[in-house]
Amino acid sequence: MAEKITTRAADYSQWYLDIVNRAEMAENSAVRGCMVIKPHGYAIWEKMQRALDRLFKDTGHVNAYFPLFIPKSFLAREEEMAAGFAKECAVVTHYRLKAGPGGKGIIVDPEAKLEEELIIRPTSETIIWNTYKSWIQSYRDLPLLINQWCNVVRWEMRTRLFLRTAEFLWQEGHTAHATQKEAEEEAHKMLDVYRIFAEDWMAMPVLTGRKSEGQKFPGAVYTLCIEGLMQDRKALQAGTSHFLGQNFAKAFDVQFQNQEGKLEYPWATSWGVSTRLVGGLIMTHSDDQGLVLPPRLAPIHAVIVPIYRKSEEKAAVLAAAEKLAAAIRDLPLREWLNYEPVSVKVDDRDQYQPGFKFNEWELKGVPVRIELGPKDLEKNACVLARRDLPGKEAKEMGVPLDAAPSRIGVILKEMQSALFTKALQFREANTREVNSYDDFKKQIEEPGGFLLAHWDGTRESEDQISAETKATIRCIPFNRKKEAGKCIISGKPSEGRVVFAKAY
Amino acid sequence: MAEKITTRAADYSQWYLDIVNRAEMAENSAVRGCMVIKPHGYAIWEKMQRALDRLFKDTGHVNAYFPLFIPKSFLAREEEMAAGFAKECAVVTHYRLKAGPGGKGIIVDPEAKLEEELIIRPTSETIIWNTYKSWIQSYRDLPLLINQWCNVVRWEMRTRLFLRTAEFLWQEGHTAHATQKEAEEEAHKMLDVYRIFAEDWMAMPVLTGRKSEGQKFPGAVYTLCIEGLMQDRKALQAGTSHFLGQNFAKAFDVQFQNQEGKLEYPWATSWGVSTRLVGGLIMTHSDDQGLVLPPRLAPIHAVIVPIYRKSEEKAAVLAAAEKLAAAIRDLPLREWLNYEPVSVKVDDRDQYQPGFKFNEWELKGVPVRIELGPKDLEKNACVLARRDLPGKEAKEMGVPLDAAPSRIGVILKEMQSALFTKALQFREANTREVNSYDDFKKQIEEPGGFLLAHWDGTRESEDQISAETKATIRCIPFNRKKEAGKCIISGKPSEGRVVFAKAY
Repeated sequence: MAEKITTRAADYSQWYLDIVNRAEMAENSAVRGCMVIKPHGYAIWEKMQRALDRLFKDTGHVNAYFPLFIPKSFLAREEEMAAGFAKECAVVTHYRLKAGPGGKGIIVDPEAKLEEELIIRPTSETIIWNTYKSWIQSYRDLPLLINQWCNVVRWEMRTRLFLRTAEFLWQEGHTAHATQKEAEEEAHKMLDVYRIFAEDWMAMPVLTGRKSEGQKFPGAVYTLCIEGLMQDRKALQAGTSHFLGQNFAKAFDVQFQNQEGKLEYPWATSWGVSTRLVGGLIMTHSDDQGLVLPPRLAPIHAVIVPIYRKSEEKAAVLAAAEKLAAAIRDLPLREWLNYEPVSVKVDDRDQYQPGFKFNEWELKGVPVRIELGPKDLEKNACVLARRDLPGKEAKEMGVPLDAAPSRIGVILKEMQSALFTKALQFREANTREVNSYDDFKKQIEEPGGFLLAHWDGTRESEDQISAETKATIRCIPFNRKKEAGKCIISGKPSEGRVVFAKAY
Repeated sequence: MAEKITTRAADYSQWYLDIVNRAEMAENSAVRGCMVIKPHGYAIWEKMQRALDRLFKDTGHVNAYFPLFIPKSFLAREEEMAAGFAKECAVVTHYRLKAGPGGKGIIVDPEAKLEEELIIRPTSETIIWNTYKSWIQSYRDLPLLINQWCNVVRWEMRTRLFLRTAEFLWQEGHTAHATQKEAEEEAHKMLDVYRIFAEDWMAMPVLTGRKSEGQKFPGAVYTLCIEGLMQDRKALQAGTSHFLGQNFAKAFDVQFQNQEGKLEYPWATSWGVSTRLVGGLIMTHSDDQGLVLPPRLAPIHAVIVPIYRKSEEKAAVLAAAEKLAAAIRDLPLREWLNYEPVSVKVDDRDQYQPGFKFNEWELKGVPVRIELGPKDLEKNACVLARRDLPGKEAKEMGVPLDAAPSRIGVILKEMQSALFTKALQFREANTREVNSYDDFKKQIEEPGGFLLAHWDGTRESEDQISAETKATIRCIPFNRKKEAGKCIISGKPSEGRVVFAKAY
């Protein structure tokens, strides 16, 4: 076996990278800041996509695809957006290569320079609203409820696998509405879709709320967000939903005729989640032994490790393993798993010992391990081990083979909800009210977590706290109590507490 | 209603563009050569992706994701590939924008020039084989069976929606094997997966065979292909599978230790299909009234058009329509539809008349239309209309409501196979042997189609025929008869006929 994973207690950042590496989730590529998403990591992203896509479609959205390239001038049309993204844009300037001097190597053909440079999309509001101009003429064309799954590029200087990469995969919803009210409802509805996905699929509790001015999306009127708390007590912004007002409609001159025949600008939202969620999933549940995955997003739900020494034992054990696997695949969990099959693997690799296999599947986060050997077979039974429980607690011995499939179905559901409960308890234990700036500065360092504190609502106070403590306002929570207080830094009056944390 | 679709007889190219436009499949974007795939077009591509992805996974493949960017020097490492793609590469040279002089507009920041230019992937062999270098050390790491769904860019000068665009969506499989035999088997196996998909899902018959040297993929030892015949008797290359030999392993210095402990270069394949298939689907089945879609790839399987004049009729008709829709959704077709739900729409839009709705759904290719009015309701019946049949033949009157769902299930399956049969008959009627070059030149112009002719196997003859007639060798079919003959242009001996056609 390779070297051990760094423990979370010893070095959380290194633990994270060890998990990503050892569980074969992703790796850095030859291109600065871009990652290769390896099959095990990609399979989790695919599960996330499927579940989210179903939620989007169930709320009336359809998918489409817009170009990778954005003419440079489009970006300039919405000022805040241009300012927000200009510093991290990959720019295409030429469209041809040719043989180098003397036939050596290849060079960019200077004659193939584009008249206007193209930006690789960092987000697609501009190209999409330019397209909407011809799609929206009448109130009958509204609402337009469109989503796109794609890659985007933001030239980040400090990258970290999944959490922050120059290229990442995401979805971006872009909707247009006849009224402000409807657009604002849409922004809230989609945030709630994200909350439901985070809780019910990722088993990751999230706070919901509104971003402060300092943290909102460039080009938005306001930004709503879901925020998770990782095991190192740092926050992760896991999804955002923006009310864009009429900013992009005006920037791209999109107008529609309302029921009274008058021209109006439509109202917009956009919302997105990305492969960053895979990083959030890892940091919410995994442990020092490896990945822990909520069953609804696990690429493999159960693995059967057959145990045998003599070759005459092998045939009988493998036959029983295959029979058991077939019965597990037939479990009535299709709906719970978004109409994906229950995935069961019989690990019949001859070149590895059972102990090696146990470690590997533990590392990769398979929720249920099934051990099956000649002695079990004599008793028509098997051993089950649940990934998220410690030591002996994880094991169920002597489970009758005919009862094992339904027991596994129960375990999968129990584990899904246990992971959520555990993460919720962790968050609650690490969410505290603080009432002085001294206390704030101490607690934000150790133990960290979500700190609920009064803030006067100004950009100035927000920036000062952030500069001095590296903590940011994660959100103004939807469910905050009305409570008069004093801003921890300015002493000015505040209407209620906001959530601070250090964040990824 | 908008103007009529150009008929196929009048102008096939314009008919195609009319269909793409009027059925809201795609449109040109503001970026030269790049298309916007509209929701109805994208929904078909999604269905294709799902079906293909299942076929890939059932043959042991897993998905992963590699960077959009390829360092320029990587492309140079495999000479044929560099020569084949250099002329159509989009090149990223800078990574930042900044405010223009005097704060006006935004410009490319000249200080943010990349040390090495990055190419937007036109295909990913190079970046993937560079990655495989660290993934492949031992025979135990093989085979590596990986697929990627992504966008690619080839800077095409003459583009046509779906068929040829600068950016397109595709999948690319990249596999590595310990032996030549296994890699060649893989290349053939994946071509067969494409054939199965084309026939069973797209209802599009395809020829299978090997490309001539003049038509193979740059960097391949040989290329296998599936070729469809469109209604204008031109060929469409619908998918390719390449045996790459050890070319990329050598270019990127990837070696593995075999069972005897010796270092060897692994053997490679790659294979891909793209959004071009959507164009092929349109051109295979659609008619002068609009899109015709094989039910297994139709985003909407059945539409119910409620008919009523008085408002007191409306409630009863709509209630019956919803009840019928629910029963159709419950049809046991999940497996046939790749575990996607049966999709039924009740078109209850008040602002449109039934006749308008009939036209719209016909245009969009919904396989089954259900008409339901007060008179039908009195008889507890409805009217069914099947999209691919002409005039009165399409209609089934007085179908009892409780029998309608199962009847629709039967119609969907019958239509799927009828479309295939019709397309196959068309291809057979348009595949002919020709024995002289004069005859070839005449027939390739009128009526066109697949011409089976003798060829001496040389690049010279192939190029001359292509230059003089614009016909190319589509493939050397797997199932060709051994038949001695003389090359139609050189008169030299030939072992059997190859397939010529004009092609998209």
